[in-house]
Amino acid sequence: MTPDEFRENGKKMIDWIADYYEQIEKYPVLSQVQPGDISCQLPEQAPEQGESMSDIMADVDRIIMPGITHWQSPNFFAYFQSNSSFPSILGDLLSSGLGVQGMLWATSPACTELETRVMDWLVDLMGLPEHFKSTDSGGGVIQDTASSAALAALLAARERKTNYRSHQTGDTAGLVAYISTQTHSSLEKGVKIMGLGTDRLRKIAVDPRFAMDPLELEKQIVQDLAAGMKPFFVCATIGTTSSNAVDPVRRIGEICQKYDLWLHVDAAMAGSAALLPDYRHYFDGLELADSYAFNPHKWLFTNFDCDCFWVADKAALIKTLSILPEYLKNEATEQGAVIDYRDWHIQLGRRFRSLKLWFVLRHFGAEGLRHHIRQHLELTGEFVAMVQSSDDFELLNQPPFNLVCFRHKAGNTFNKQLMDTINRTGRLFFTHTVLNEQFWLRMSIGQTQTELRHLKDAWQLITQQAKTLPLPPENN
Amino acid sequence: MTPDEFRENGKKMIDWIADYYEQIEKYPVLSQVQPGDISCQLPEQAPEQGESMSDIMADVDRIIMPGITHWQSPNFFAYFQSNSSFPSILGDLLSSGLGVQGMLWATSPACTELETRVMDWLVDLMGLPEHFKSTDSGGGVIQDTASSAALAALLAARERKTNYRSHQTGDTAGLVAYISTQTHSSLEKGVKIMGLGTDRLRKIAVDPRFAMDPLELEKQIVQDLAAGMKPFFVCATIGTTSSNAVDPVRRIGEICQKYDLWLHVDAAMAGSAALLPDYRHYFDGLELADSYAFNPHKWLFTNFDCDCFWVADKAALIKTLSILPEYLKNEATEQGAVIDYRDWHIQLGRRFRSLKLWFVLRHFGAEGLRHHIRQHLELTGEFVAMVQSSDDFELLNQPPFNLVCFRHKAGNTFNKQLMDTINRTGRLFFTHTVLNEQFWLRMSIGQTQTELRHLKDAWQLITQQAKTLPLPPENN
Repeated sequence: MTPDEFRENGKKMIDWIADYYEQIEKYPVLSQVQPGDISCQLPEQAPEQGESMSDIMADVDRIIMPGITHWQSPNFFAYFQSNSSFPSILGDLLSSGLGVQGMLWATSPACTELETRVMDWLVDLMGLPEHFKSTDSGGGVIQDTASSAALAALLAARERKTNYRSHQTGDTAGLVAYISTQTHSSLEKGVKIMGLGTDRLRKIAVDPRFAMDPLELEKQIVQDLAAGMKPFFVCATIGTTSSNAVDPVRRIGEICQKYDLWLHVDAAMAGSAALLPDYRHYFDGLELADSYAFNPHKWLFTNFDCDCFWVADKAALIKTLSILPEYLKNEATEQGAVIDYRDWHIQLGRRFRSLKLWFVLRHFGAEGLRHHIRQHLELTGEFVAMVQSSDDFELLNQPPFNLVCFRHKAGNTFNKQLMDTINRTGRLFFTHTVLNEQFWLRMSIGQTQTELRHLKDAWQLITQQAKTLPLPPENN
Repeated sequence: MTPDEFRENGKKMIDWIADYYEQIEKYPVLSQVQPGDISCQLPEQAPEQGESMSDIMADVDRIIMPGITHWQSPNFFAYFQSNSSFPSILGDLLSSGLGVQGMLWATSPACTELETRVMDWLVDLMGLPEHFKSTDSGGGVIQDTASSAALAALLAARERKTNYRSHQTGDTAGLVAYISTQTHSSLEKGVKIMGLGTDRLRKIAVDPRFAMDPLELEKQIVQDLAAGMKPFFVCATIGTTSSNAVDPVRRIGEICQKYDLWLHVDAAMAGSAALLPDYRHYFDGLELADSYAFNPHKWLFTNFDCDCFWVADKAALIKTLSILPEYLKNEATEQGAVIDYRDWHIQLGRRFRSLKLWFVLRHFGAEGLRHHIRQHLELTGEFVAMVQSSDDFELLNQPPFNLVCFRHKAGNTFNKQLMDTINRTGRLFFTHTVLNEQFWLRMSIGQTQTELRHLKDAWQLITQQAKTLPLPPENN
C-alpha cells in the first residue's frame, strides 16, 4: 500500500468510524450471535493472494459487525465501561502511525518524557499525593490494565518485605496478603501468578456497605503475626466492581503503617471522580498508599488500554522489575539521568500510550473532563430517583459514584430472567452481581455519549419487561 | 468533538501519517535530544480549557517529533525491528474506533472468534504443529509481548508440574527452570515475577554458534534431579536476541520429554521466517514444544503490540490462569461452548488486536508476506557480502536469518566509538551486543521499507567513518 493509497483508505476508515458513531444506537448493544456464528463465515485458510481494502471492509460489515457488542453505545451499562472519545482515537492513531517502541528512554525520548509529564499533570488534576510525582520520591507509569498494575504492586511489596531478596532466592515463606471479599479478582490472580498461592491470601470481611472492615483486617494481621507469618500487602478499593463500595483508605493505611505492609489502592473505575473536589473525601488517606491505580480507559474517555499507576517510592518498583542485558545498554541509561519505563512493568516493549491520554487532557481540558464526569454522576442520581419511584424495585444503597445496584423485589430468578430478556432485545446491555446471595442488577453509567434520554428509555424498558414476566410463585 | 469534526481531524491525521512516511528518511533516525529536552517544553500543568486539534498537532510537530526515534525508518537497524504497515495501521484504527473489550467471548464474540481463526491460519501458513490449532488439543492467543507469553508459559509449566496446586499452596519447592546464557532477559524477569527466584534458574552453556548445548542441558537436569530438585521448564530460542542463534529444538525437546519438562520455544523475531518452507529446518522439533511464541509486531508488518502464543494443551493454560468472579458469569461461558481469552493471559481486559493481524494477512496475502520476508533475507545476504568484501571488518558468522553481527578488527573501544559516532549522525541507527567479551555491531534487517540502497548507504557510512576514527594503539 502506497502512502497515497493509505490516504484514500485511511479517509474511508475515518468516515466508516464517524458513520459508526452516528448510527451506533441502531445496533443491538449486546451481540445476538451464537457461538461459532462468526467463525463459520471465515475461510479455513488465509488467502494466498492479497485482497483489496474494499473486500476486507465488506467482510467487516457483513461478518464482524454482527459479532460486536457495542461498548461505545450510549445504551451500554454493563460491567464497567471501557469508554472512549474521538480525540483519544486520534491520539491512538498517531501512536500506531509513529510505531515507536518506548522500552527505553533512548528508544524514543518523547514517549517517556510525555508520559512522565501527563502522569504528573494527573496528580495535580486529581489532588493525589504530591509524592506520587516523578519530581518527588514517586512517579507514574501507564500500564495496560489494573490487573498488571496490581501485579506490579504485589511484586514490589514482596521484594520490599524480603529486602529485595525474594526475586533471587524465591523465598516467600510466611508472606501474607490481604484483600476484602469484594476486591477485584485480578488481585487473587496476581497472588497466584507471583507464586504466593491463594492459601496466603486473606479475604477480609466487609461491613454492610461492602467496604473492608478495618477492625477485621487488623485482627487478622495480628493473628497472622502471632502465628509467625509475615503480613506484607493490602489492597484497598475505591469503588469495588460489584457495588462500588469504598474501603476506608485512611484507616487501612494507618494499619499498614503500624505493621509495615504495602498499601495498594485500586480505583480503576471510580478514580476519575477525583477530578471533582467534592468527591475527594472518598480518596481520603491516599497519601498513606504505596501505590495507586485508576483507568482512564474506563471512565476518562481514553480508549483501551490505559491504566495509570503511581508509586510513592519509585526505587522499590525499579529494583523489583529492572533487568539490563547487554543489548539494551546505552549511555542515557548508564548515566541514570532518565526513566526507562521497561523497569516499571512486566513487559519489555511498550507502545506510545501517553499520546492518547495527552490528546484527551488537552482537547477536553480539565474543565471539560470535570463537566463530563459530573454529568455522569448527575445521570446516576436521575436513575436512582427512577428506581426509588417504583414500588416493585429496590436500591442496594445510595451509590457513591456512577454504579447503580438495584433489583426487582420478586427475587433472584426473576431478576436474572428480567436481565436476560432485556439484553436479548439488544436495546440496552447491563449485567449483574451477587451480594449476600441476592442477585442484583448493575447499571454502570459512564459511557461517553450517554444522556438522560437513554436512561429514561432503559428504565421504561426495564419496568415494562418486569410487568410482562410471570412472577415466581414464591419470592426467593 | 462531533462526528463531523472527527471526519475533518481524522482525515488530517491520515494525511499527517502519510506525509510522515513519505518524509521519514529526512529525520535523524535516532533522536538527537538530551534528557529533559522534551519535558522542559511541556507545560507544568494540564490546560484548564480545552484546546484545538490544530494546536495539539502543532505541538506534536514542534515538541514531540524531535524526541522520536524513528522505528519505521528504512534506516532503522537497531535491536530487533518493531515493524508496521499501512494495512496494520488501518486495522488498529478500526480497533480503536470500535473500542470493544474482548475479555469474554460474550463481550464481543467476533473479537474472540476472529482471533482464534487467524491464529489457526498461521499454524498452516507457517507449518506449525497441527496440535497448536484450536480445533485440536491446543490453541493460540494474541499476547501483548513475548515477555508476557514467556511468563504465561512459565506459570502453566509450574502448575502442570505441581498438579495445579502451586497457585493455591504457593509451594514451588525444588522447581528448576533452564535457559541458555543467550536466552532473552524476559525469561529471567519471568522467573523473578513468578516467585521462583533466579537461584533456581540455570543458564546452560552455549556452543561456538551460541546455541544451547543439549549435552550440558541434560547434564544439569540429571545433576539437579540427583540433588532432589524438580526440573520443570526449558526455554529454547529460535533466533536469540544477541546473535540470532538457533537452539536445537528437537534435541532439547527430546530431553524435555525424557524428564517431563515443559518446553517453551521463543522465536519472537525469527518466527516470521517459518513462512518460507526452505527455512523450516530451523524449526525442526517444534512438535515437541508445549508452547511457542513469535511476534508479528517485530517482523510481520503488524504494529505493536501483537505477540502470537500457542500452547499444545490449552487446558493446562486455562487451568492456570482462569478465575471467574460472579460479575463475569454468563451463559456462553457456563456452557463451555466458547473461548474466554481472559483465561489465556495475565490481564483481564483485552483490545481487538486480531483485526490488525487479519488486515495484514488479507492485504498482503500469504504470497506477499513470503515475498517481503524473503526480500529481507536476501538483503541480509547482500550486507553480509559487503562485510566480507572488506579487510577491516569481520563477520561473527553466516547469519541464519536477518541479523548480521560484525565488527571492525580494531577492537572493542573502536567499535563502540564507531557505532556511537554513526548513530549521532542520525543517518542510521544500529546497536550492539557483547559475545565472548567482544563488542559486536548488530544490523537487524527487517524494517518494512528497507531496500538495497539503504544498506549500501549504511555500509558506505560505516566504512567511511571507520577510516576517519583514530585506530587504538593496541587492539583489544
